[in-house]
Amino acid sequence: MFRPQIKVMDCTVRDGGLMNKWQFEDDFVRAVYKACNDAHIDYMEIGYLSSESAFSRKEYGSWKFCAESDIQRVTHGIEKKIKLSAMADIGRIEYDDIPLKADSSLDMVRVACYVHQIDAAIALAHHCMEKGYEATINVMAVSTVGLRDLEEALDDLAKSRVPIIYLVDSFGAFYSEDIDTLSQKYMASLPDKTIGIHCHNNQQLAFANTIAAIINGVNYLDGSLYGIGRGAGNCPLELLLSFLKNPKFRVRPLIEVIESHIIPWHKKIDWGYFIPYMITGVLNQHPRAAMAHMESDRKEKITDFFNQVTNATDLV
Amino acid sequence: MFRPQIKVMDCTVRDGGLMNKWQFEDDFVRAVYKACNDAHIDYMEIGYLSSESAFSRKEYGSWKFCAESDIQRVTHGIEKKIKLSAMADIGRIEYDDIPLKADSSLDMVRVACYVHQIDAAIALAHHCMEKGYEATINVMAVSTVGLRDLEEALDDLAKSRVPIIYLVDSFGAFYSEDIDTLSQKYMASLPDKTIGIHCHNNQQLAFANTIAAIINGVNYLDGSLYGIGRGAGNCPLELLLSFLKNPKFRVRPLIEVIESHIIPWHKKIDWGYFIPYMITGVLNQHPRAAMAHMESDRKEKITDFFNQVTNATDLV
Repeated sequence: MFRPQIKVMDCTVRDGGLMNKWQFEDDFVRAVYKACNDAHIDYMEIGYLSSESAFSRKEYGSWKFCAESDIQRVTHGIEKKIKLSAMADIGRIEYDDIPLKADSSLDMVRVACYVHQIDAAIALAHHCMEKGYEATINVMAVSTVGLRDLEEALDDLAKSRVPIIYLVDSFGAFYSEDIDTLSQKYMASLPDKTIGIHCHNNQQLAFANTIAAIINGVNYLDGSLYGIGRGAGNCPLELLLSFLKNPKFRVRPLIEVIESHIIPWHKKIDWGYFIPYMITGVLNQHPRAAMAHMESDRKEKITDFFNQVTNATDLV
Repeated sequence: MFRPQIKVMDCTVRDGGLMNKWQFEDDFVRAVYKACNDAHIDYMEIGYLSSESAFSRKEYGSWKFCAESDIQRVTHGIEKKIKLSAMADIGRIEYDDIPLKADSSLDMVRVACYVHQIDAAIALAHHCMEKGYEATINVMAVSTVGLRDLEEALDDLAKSRVPIIYLVDSFGAFYSEDIDTLSQKYMASLPDKTIGIHCHNNQQLAFANTIAAIINGVNYLDGSLYGIGRGAGNCPLELLLSFLKNPKFRVRPLIEVIESHIIPWHKKIDWGYFIPYMITGVLNQHPRAAMAHMESDRKEKITDFFNQVTNATDLV
């Protein structure tokens, strides 16, 4: 029996864009939108909300900004069954640059923050809610947060009006037992809220950890087509939809768009299981060193990378 | 705290050879042997035991046979710390073609069988034990076995003298909850035996399901370098060793041999996460249709494959 409270969020463009500065053609974003719509996925996160003053459109594609005109261009003419989300990073969006919900195709704003930014994140999420949006707070890199900081953050979130809080495994460092422990802690500390999960695939555990979260009562689930995303990528949406029992979901539209639009990008961008990403996941480190290695001409020198990052550790 | 009863088995050459008819150069097998030895892995499965009359050496490489002279050639001069295993398929090896343990470098024979072959498997395993080998029985494709057949097989195995019985997810169809259920059933039905696990990675769950089995008390764990194996491949050994806490294990030798010998093969053979393998996993089907599709010139026509195999199913 499926759990009707479960909602699935596609992060293909938003998280995948971390690999190419969101330089996707309109045709790509439109195809992903249509496929997710047809698959009856609940939400599509189409990019980041950023102030135009914070980043240059010469360097970054449209989906770093998610201007209403950008969204209209790719969704025009397709009946909208899916809700649209954009992610906002603390410090990269001015309040005044966020339109009223009445003037926007966006339905949700997800505020991403590190644990020390919780107060700013709550304020921004409240602001978005006052403008008419659904809102979440996604606390990143929890695998590096100590118990006292985590408990203080959860206390602050419990007192907020933000209804959905995400557990995020930014570094792909968690095993299912970590997901069990943290899901249960989030649920116990935030009894009136819905908990979400966003996993990275450094140790090939993003899908398995999403299932572990479901078993623990987590109801908002992130995935992306063929797992596209930063570094090792995310939970593959086609696996997640095949697992979930809600009869409304359709897998075929996802397979079609993976064939037509995602696999061609996979030949240009190296997301997925590669040893450098695996190593930073095992070591619970940010993937930036692995990404730099993968972008260098020494990408296949994986023993050098292993030696470089394990110098001071015990993964020998 | 690590569990000292846990033993790790490398299946790189045996399961990887299913993709190239074991046409590995001696240098490859020797490098894998040396790396597993240096990593302090417990067992290496070097291939299949087959009668020379059953297969042609013109078509199949040495590791379809594992003749003593083959093994000597690749292990010569390297101090043997690891135990060596070979797999035997029912009907493909004559009893008389199995040497006495005293005349062999092999330490273990693992008998692979389908559930209807249990009696023949027990007889062959007993024969190997009488010749001096450690022995296991690996019951394949359990995801397609009904409850009555499974219980009868477990009853027969309980009465046998074979000390190690493997739970095998041949099609990569199991979720962690299936592993929980079946591990517990195997443990309860076979209280005097050790249980092993061999997973396939069609749904990116081989490592996660191996962890689930560990949590349930399973102590013999199969993996392969970079996950090499039939179709979607196996549990990646480098992930498994990084997870296990036994301080004897070393990851670096695995990274080195992945760089020097496995990644070059990955450019020639498509094991790993590909949509056709994912689809047969979700559908709990043998991967042969997916393998045929992957070997055709229509490999990237994944929607055609989806349509072909889901005609009569509900994965739409």
